[in-house]
Amino acid sequence: MSQDSSYSEGDLRNTGMRLKHDREWDYELDRIAEAIEEKDADTVGLQFPEGLKRRGPRVADDIRALVEERDLTDDVRVLLSGQPCYGACDLDTYLMKRSDVFVHFGHSPMKQTEKVIYVPLFSNVDVLPIIDEALEELTDPTEEGPLGLVTTAQHMNRFDEMRSALEDEGYEVKTRRGDDRLTHEGQVLGCNYASADVDADQILYVGGGKFHPLGLAMEHPDKRVVIADPVNNVVTVADTEKFIKQRYASVHKAMDAQKWGVIFCTKIGQGRWEDAERILDDNDDAYLITMDEVTPDRLRNFDMDAFVNTGCPRITTDDGPRFHKPMLTPGEYDAAVGNKPLSEIGFDTFHDTW
Amino acid sequence: MSQDSSYSEGDLRNTGMRLKHDREWDYELDRIAEAIEEKDADTVGLQFPEGLKRRGPRVADDIRALVEERDLTDDVRVLLSGQPCYGACDLDTYLMKRSDVFVHFGHSPMKQTEKVIYVPLFSNVDVLPIIDEALEELTDPTEEGPLGLVTTAQHMNRFDEMRSALEDEGYEVKTRRGDDRLTHEGQVLGCNYASADVDADQILYVGGGKFHPLGLAMEHPDKRVVIADPVNNVVTVADTEKFIKQRYASVHKAMDAQKWGVIFCTKIGQGRWEDAERILDDNDDAYLITMDEVTPDRLRNFDMDAFVNTGCPRITTDDGPRFHKPMLTPGEYDAAVGNKPLSEIGFDTFHDTW
Repeated sequence: MSQDSSYSEGDLRNTGMRLKHDREWDYELDRIAEAIEEKDADTVGLQFPEGLKRRGPRVADDIRALVEERDLTDDVRVLLSGQPCYGACDLDTYLMKRSDVFVHFGHSPMKQTEKVIYVPLFSNVDVLPIIDEALEELTDPTEEGPLGLVTTAQHMNRFDEMRSALEDEGYEVKTRRGDDRLTHEGQVLGCNYASADVDADQILYVGGGKFHPLGLAMEHPDKRVVIADPVNNVVTVADTEKFIKQRYASVHKAMDAQKWGVIFCTKIGQGRWEDAERILDDNDDAYLITMDEVTPDRLRNFDMDAFVNTGCPRITTDDGPRFHKPMLTPGEYDAAVGNKPLSEIGFDTFHDTW
Repeated sequence: MSQDSSYSEGDLRNTGMRLKHDREWDYELDRIAEAIEEKDADTVGLQFPEGLKRRGPRVADDIRALVEERDLTDDVRVLLSGQPCYGACDLDTYLMKRSDVFVHFGHSPMKQTEKVIYVPLFSNVDVLPIIDEALEELTDPTEEGPLGLVTTAQHMNRFDEMRSALEDEGYEVKTRRGDDRLTHEGQVLGCNYASADVDADQILYVGGGKFHPLGLAMEHPDKRVVIADPVNNVVTVADTEKFIKQRYASVHKAMDAQKWGVIFCTKIGQGRWEDAERILDDNDDAYLITMDEVTPDRLRNFDMDAFVNTGCPRITTDDGPRFHKPMLTPGEYDAAVGNKPLSEIGFDTFHDTW
């Protein structure tokens, strides 16, 4: 015990043991080990989303320990991606190209490819208690028609459980796999709610986050969206009013803009070139700016009156107020320059892969 | 006049005139126009350093006006790089690969290639008055031997003028082109002072910035470095004491570190793979992190006790205190882990291209 105290949690190199250290997630080390052996890999690239980056060193330790234990290859160099990562749209292509085995943790595949091992890292949070609580907010199964059910990638492993629990309560549960950008039936992304496009007037969203269900409610204004958050243990009903007001305010501020910066995001799954081109063709005072991370600091250097973001819609809506000038979605741009009425702006969603 | 007031400065599209708007720099539009015509370019990518990014839209306007006026091609799409840019080491390779003509402004070439048009944007500041003032800080030409002369890329166009002024005062002026990373004789970079490696006990540095001359003085501790800043109009003598103390403090803080993050920078001219590998081979508790922008925010996500930066040395030394854990140069790492004495750490410089 006293000897071990100098090692950090999950440090396996000095003991050759404890491979199963405490963790909430299954990093699927066996699958990674198999790929290393099969490809006789010299380099293994690991990419984690922001909230899990600190797990990287331990996973690297585990991989190196496995390589040694099982004598998979002579030696392996593990590279951790230090790039920000907010989704499967956001692969570190530099690292991917330079790694024999490349593992992307925490998101489900946006597009299947042999170059990437996706390890989804499903949450092990029990979803049944919060679904039980959500029943109080849902209208009676006999009164309203069917119920739509959606969730995020991290709770996808419990999707059948959710469905059964609702069916046991008498609901007809409608689900679908929205489009190609999504891996699973019932899955939603911050930029894609096509899985909620089912024949039901109310949708149960099971998952965390403030903005995901807001986007869902914006994208489906005809439906009532009940939010069951199993991590924070809260049930709420989505209310888009404040959000819509904030968006209208941004559009109004941008109406006087002369010079527009049109952002084309260079991240593999966040580029919408046709949207960017359409605006450039529409407006002689629009300038194309290419970048990967879209941040207030980077845009402050450009002398523009307003920006249109054709990249990740969440940056526009969630981070919008942090930018020094109004930041609009492509649809909001059309309202600001008078191409369409303000009442027609909807939520900006993303439907292709790459 | 009243009609024009609605146009921003340099907006040429609505007048077809005013191509020669006020500007401090020569953007070498003719050279760019020739390349557009020669390559029958559809896309032109422009990359500016941070301080000049706001000039981008005007230069884009000028280029489009020229294309139309001279009927160079059917149409051209101008793309502005929104990536941070701090040197010729920092080419936007994404934009470069996707542009028919790619122009990098504000830095001299680190490596000549047909893919890039480098437009150096020389300063038009008069350097003679500050050299005159600097004479008071320089020792008499008859007492000390020769005088070394160096400057930064933006004042390179006045280098012969500087040399003549000093020779007229009786100095024997020694200059050289340091190595392959530098374009010009007498040129220094924030990461390379090889041009000051001349047979002279005192060096006159003509240029701005606080850190460039400090690096110069650190790299050449045996020489007296006089700084003539023609932009801020100040003459000083480089004093490395405070800088050295700060570096020693960082090394001391890192001496207890168990887990080391070793940063490999993925920018085209900032990667030192061999240095990174050497440290990883030296230390089982070192983890390789790959990234382009090395920022405090990005590193905060990693649970490390200290970092070694094999990328841009200026980030380590100039921004070091902004990181949440000690950030060392490769040489300082060796001192922290006991591979060499603390007294032997020098300034971290960069001598290759790519």
